[in-house]
Amino acid sequence: MYPSFANPTQFAPTEDFDSYPRDLERDVRLLVEERADLLFNPTAEDMYPRGYQTYVDVEQVSRPLCGAHRPGHFRGVATVVLKLFNIVRPHVAMFGLKDYQQVQVIRRMMEDVNLDVEIVGCPTVREPDGLAMSSRNRYLEPAEREAALCLQSALGKAEALVRGGETAAQRIREAVVAEISRQPLVRLEYADLCDPKALHAVEEVKGPTLLALCAWVGKARLIDNRILAGERA
Amino acid sequence: MYPSFANPTQFAPTEDFDSYPRDLERDVRLLVEERADLLFNPTAEDMYPRGYQTYVDVEQVSRPLCGAHRPGHFRGVATVVLKLFNIVRPHVAMFGLKDYQQVQVIRRMMEDVNLDVEIVGCPTVREPDGLAMSSRNRYLEPAEREAALCLQSALGKAEALVRGGETAAQRIREAVVAEISRQPLVRLEYADLCDPKALHAVEEVKGPTLLALCAWVGKARLIDNRILAGERA
Repeated sequence: MYPSFANPTQFAPTEDFDSYPRDLERDVRLLVEERADLLFNPTAEDMYPRGYQTYVDVEQVSRPLCGAHRPGHFRGVATVVLKLFNIVRPHVAMFGLKDYQQVQVIRRMMEDVNLDVEIVGCPTVREPDGLAMSSRNRYLEPAEREAALCLQSALGKAEALVRGGETAAQRIREAVVAEISRQPLVRLEYADLCDPKALHAVEEVKGPTLLALCAWVGKARLIDNRILAGERA
Repeated sequence: MYPSFANPTQFAPTEDFDSYPRDLERDVRLLVEERADLLFNPTAEDMYPRGYQTYVDVEQVSRPLCGAHRPGHFRGVATVVLKLFNIVRPHVAMFGLKDYQQVQVIRRMMEDVNLDVEIVGCPTVREPDGLAMSSRNRYLEPAEREAALCLQSALGKAEALVRGGETAAQRIREAVVAEISRQPLVRLEYADLCDPKALHAVEEVKGPTLLALCAWVGKARLIDNRILAGERA
């Protein structure tokens, strides 16, 4: 989601809205290359004028993972996406699956409030070495950029374990934590195995299971995830 | 609002959703007489299926008056009206002004979430003796029915005071409380003078001001209100 859509008051104090990396000129150039017809780029004041007071809570799917560490964040996401859809009235909207929980919050809201917009989750785009692309990657110093690859390798280790028959979430999680803790520049925020739709934690990998990671690398808070496709019990 | 639209879990424990007076056959007959083309009458399960978890809060206007006494009530109202509008996609929706706060909550939500539905507030329909019509009036025993008229007379006393030049909300409120406390069968829940749009309490009647009343009469919780049209300062 383009960050200027979010309510600045909903941002956690650890990440300043005004310092979020933005480059409108570059965004416009890329959109023109892709032959976009329209760009909707409202100001915070357009979206949240004086007296604004309505917020949407998508309760359960907003709670775990990033929701547990960024109170109010998904409330802001749900609210602004509802507003965006009411203004633009799209038939289809695309969201990147790197922000997996965001996609699930939006899907659940669409279903609950009876809004008929097709939500398309787009596969994460990666750098050649596997690091998930993110505006925040530009915060990384060269040594941090190198260390950040442990997210990708931890996801790979987890997938290898599941392919090898491991089903205990706890053991898969331990392998992920071990892989990431080899990097002193990386501080893990969470590594959780969850139901891929409801996002509640699971104990066992019995079918498709989300492994979601979040780690701080220097000033950058990075997230990544993979669906571990365990055999159905 | 037709009560079957509301989430039963949002009802205050003092009023049971299942015992709310409803008479679908009579409603249908009245709608046929008015040549309605369609009736939308979903079940609670249609509106809130298993896994439902999205709620809309309209923060400030939901807080005072009935919102202070029925926690979660306007959250249920806002949520179900958003759903209703997304399902029905009306150009115009009519709501009775007896439920004045409800109308303001819905208007504010429409503006905040950029929904383009014209909200028409309809004047309160009254019995010949002035009692505001309500499904709940059928709970009243004859002596209670008589006593309930004090809401109407209290509104009249307040209006007479304002016409006579009184501007102090505290003195107007005292006259309302005195009028209602003459009736031992009536227990006042609130009597507040408010800004007619934002619904915050006012100290002085300087322009149009909402006087909103709520009182229990036997098993019935009755509300009524009037706009006191003070001279603008």
